[in-house]
Amino acid sequence: MKEKQPSINALTAPLVQYLVDNATELRVGINILENNATVIDAGIAVRGGLEAGRRIGEICMGGLGQVRFRASTHYEHWSWHVDVHSSNPVISCLGSQYAGWSLSHGEGKGAFNALGSGPGRAMGSKEELFDELGYRDDRGPACLVIEADRIPPVEIADKIATACGITADQLTLIITPTSSLAGCVQVVSRVLETALHKAHALGFELEKIIDGAGSAPVPPPAVDFLTAMSRTNDAILFAGQVHLFVDADDSDAGELAGKLPSSASGDYGKPFGEIFKNVNYDFYQVDPMLFSPARVTVSSIRTGNSFQAGRIDLTLLNQSFSGQCG
Amino acid sequence: MKEKQPSINALTAPLVQYLVDNATELRVGINILENNATVIDAGIAVRGGLEAGRRIGEICMGGLGQVRFRASTHYEHWSWHVDVHSSNPVISCLGSQYAGWSLSHGEGKGAFNALGSGPGRAMGSKEELFDELGYRDDRGPACLVIEADRIPPVEIADKIATACGITADQLTLIITPTSSLAGCVQVVSRVLETALHKAHALGFELEKIIDGAGSAPVPPPAVDFLTAMSRTNDAILFAGQVHLFVDADDSDAGELAGKLPSSASGDYGKPFGEIFKNVNYDFYQVDPMLFSPARVTVSSIRTGNSFQAGRIDLTLLNQSFSGQCG
Amino acid sequence: MKEKQPSINALTAPLVQYLVDNATELRVGINILENNATVIDAGIAVRGGLEAGRRIGEICMGGLGQVRFRASTHYEHWSWHVDVHSSNPVISCLGSQYAGWSLSHGEGKGAFNALGSGPGRAMGSKEELFDELGYRDDRGPACLVIEADRIPPVEIADKIATACGITADQLTLIITPTSSLAGCVQVVSRVLETALHKAHALGFELEKIIDGAGSAPVPPPAVDFLTAMSRTNDAILFAGQVHLFVDADDSDAGELAGKLPSSASGDYGKPFGEIFKNVNYDFYQVDPMLFSPARVTVSSIRTGNSFQAGRIDLTLLNQSFSGQCG
Repeated sequence: MKEKQPSINALTAPLVQYLVDNATELRVGINILENNATVIDAGIAVRGGLEAGRRIGEICMGGLGQVRFRASTHYEHWSWHVDVHSSNPVISCLGSQYAGWSLSHGEGKGAFNALGSGPGRAMGSKEELFDELGYRDDRGPACLVIEADRIPPVEIADKIATACGITADQLTLIITPTSSLAGCVQVVSRVLETALHKAHALGFELEKIIDGAGSAPVPPPAVDFLTAMSRTNDAILFAGQVHLFVDADDSDAGELAGKLPSSASGDYGKPFGEIFKNVNYDFYQVDPMLFSPARVTVSSIRTGNSFQAGRIDLTLLNQSFSGQCG
Repeated sequence: MKEKQPSINALTAPLVQYLVDNATELRVGINILENNATVIDAGIAVRGGLEAGRRIGEICMGGLGQVRFRASTHYEHWSWHVDVHSSNPVISCLGSQYAGWSLSHGEGKGAFNALGSGPGRAMGSKEELFDELGYRDDRGPACLVIEADRIPPVEIADKIATACGITADQLTLIITPTSSLAGCVQVVSRVLETALHKAHALGFELEKIIDGAGSAPVPPPAVDFLTAMSRTNDAILFAGQVHLFVDADDSDAGELAGKLPSSASGDYGKPFGEIFKNVNYDFYQVDPMLFSPARVTVSSIRTGNSFQAGRIDLTLLNQSFSGQCG
Repeated sequence: MKEKQPSINALTAPLVQYLVDNATELRVGINILENNATVIDAGIAVRGGLEAGRRIGEICMGGLGQVRFRASTHYEHWSWHVDVHSSNPVISCLGSQYAGWSLSHGEGKGAFNALGSGPGRAMGSKEELFDELGYRDDRGPACLVIEADRIPPVEIADKIATACGITADQLTLIITPTSSLAGCVQVVSRVLETALHKAHALGFELEKIIDGAGSAPVPPPAVDFLTAMSRTNDAILFAGQVHLFVDADDSDAGELAGKLPSSASGDYGKPFGEIFKNVNYDFYQVDPMLFSPARVTVSSIRTGNSFQAGRIDLTLLNQSFSGQCG
């Protein structure tokens, strides 16, 4: 089925404008760089908050996904969750939400190194993934979400604008520290994206993924980066659940379901911070197959059969959300 | 309490327009028939998706109801539900959502036979139910939702427009195959409607029903029509829950609660597809009292007392969602 | 962190206008007093409904909070809940939602005595609380929500308009009887507010409360005022849950968590109506520390640690929702 594809930057523009127009209520800061790029601070010099994070989660999904808060009584004292859904998960999660654009400026201690996610990637990023997706966007203005603890230097904004083929005044960067409230929410809003990314890494044909939904608990923010990163990952690894709808045979759908849960990885079983410490903070030594939801259902719309694997582990979740890795 | 009634077609018009304006993002197809009626394809030549189904569910409810997705951990691997609510359930569910308009054209193999639901019914359908409701609508444009596997012939659109007293260019038909993702969602969004319809069949005075809410799990789509129909029914019969608020005496409210759950029917106990097969696919041999939610609460606003009956049965739900009837 | 504060009356104005524009669908009544103030009746001469109550809940929160319905299977037959969230809980809950403006007119049997909540308080109320909050609003039109069983006399509207410094035609009063469907919802939507109010009463510094979310079941409406009041309180006391995010040391956060749940009060253990009857309906004899959620989590964003206390008690909830106090 060859489909016309939406412009994720055009879809996202009003969501970004909402942040700007409601900056006071959402407790985000609006900064204009000297090149006239807009930088939205969601937790550095300002409070930010859960609602800002929820909206940034939807911006990350390129306007093709919904992120909603929901209370639950099932997880003991971790009662708040995000429910995430997209009827175009491939473009929304991989073409937009995945943090795949490597950004850097300067060297040594003052260097700025970060990963960009969001719809701007489809305009300016050189990732090969876009060739596989067969998707590009060219309808600006562009927006990129950056997980970082400080406002990026103007040179970063210049590079991005140039790569996107737009003037800097058409660019908005949204900055979310990992340890901020908004950061917590926007990262766990990636629960569906982790499933998409792992499916891709497993060699599952992306065009077979038709629809998808996921949920994950909102972790309490941590102070140090390592603990914050551990909790946001663990929210997904130990308590994330995803349902994918695929146009695939039973053998492909069943194999995907079996391999998809985090517990299918040999590294599974400890909070992410501990694993990371054990490999001396070298990401490349962590099994990339670890990063996925705890529990998955894969339903084949070709056969009507569903395949289920994985489990939610509240003991490990508690260990992560209550512990400190720093 | 004599109330002014809303125009459900006027309320629905912007929801329909949203589907047209966002057809690419929602993966629906827009077709213009030769008589200039619009036909929205939500799963025949296009993907459609859960979100399209959710929005079509709200269109079915005539703009007087909300349909929302929600994750849950209670139902094992069937984690996605619709939460449905209306503060005017009689007009929303019976005056609009109930599939009561019998549509047909042609004969033999090529004949088109289907049931129409949605706000257009209140403009053009000859159902006696509208006399009982004391409700009619005359503010076009009109919209009808049709559960079918193909685009209806132009003659069907002509008939509907004529019955509604509008020109065909003022008519939108939305087509949702039962086995499509959008179809699954829009059918289980009828969980509250099944309670209203059964209350009516039981002779409960409709004007006593003041408010209502329901929820049901989203079934995995099936390939064959029989299994698809079984699963969407079973989602409601085995796992649907409804809360009605009625202006009635305790005896009436209690009697309604006792009779309302699906398990009050003698036919209860097997996936619907099996029951249907056992009666040689003759709908009229299935107990009409079977079609209702698994669990109900009826609260009397006249006395402050609540009456509860029925139960959710996850074993039967699993049997239906995992099995094939074809 | 010194922040610019939003105008809660400006934020709320479009939400109030929505009620007026959709009065028929929401089943609320629009009355214009002789001084041209607007009075929205949400359950006296009209039906009102859950959805009207949800929207009034968001109006009470000054446009800084979200109230959403959610089904659950955890609470047996009480399946409907409100999820409440605010990224600015101090202004939203204490500066707006708290029913702190004492309104009265006349004497004896015909006297009108009620408490006003909502954003209009920040314009016209003389409560000392606003000095502590360091917050005032001056951007009309103003709106006040009043829990009452009858339309207030025009003199009440005159007093409020004068206190707010606006003409009466710029004032909207929303009236919700405690025993109405809308009333039930708008009161339990105060689940987060009760936590904020108790934190304040405990002497916890308000500026340390950064973000918060809560949920509570929707009680069945009662006929008599005492039972209605009992159930809406008990929904929060026995089954409300709140998560606060505070910028505080562990000792402060931990102490707050320990004292916050309703079960920390000596009066805890019976439906509120019984407690109230036992003290001869004298509010001042009820422990003010009783009025808070059943279960709380307090997360310190300063340390990354979370503190948890309290419990949900479904037996007491059932006792309250099924019983009558009148």
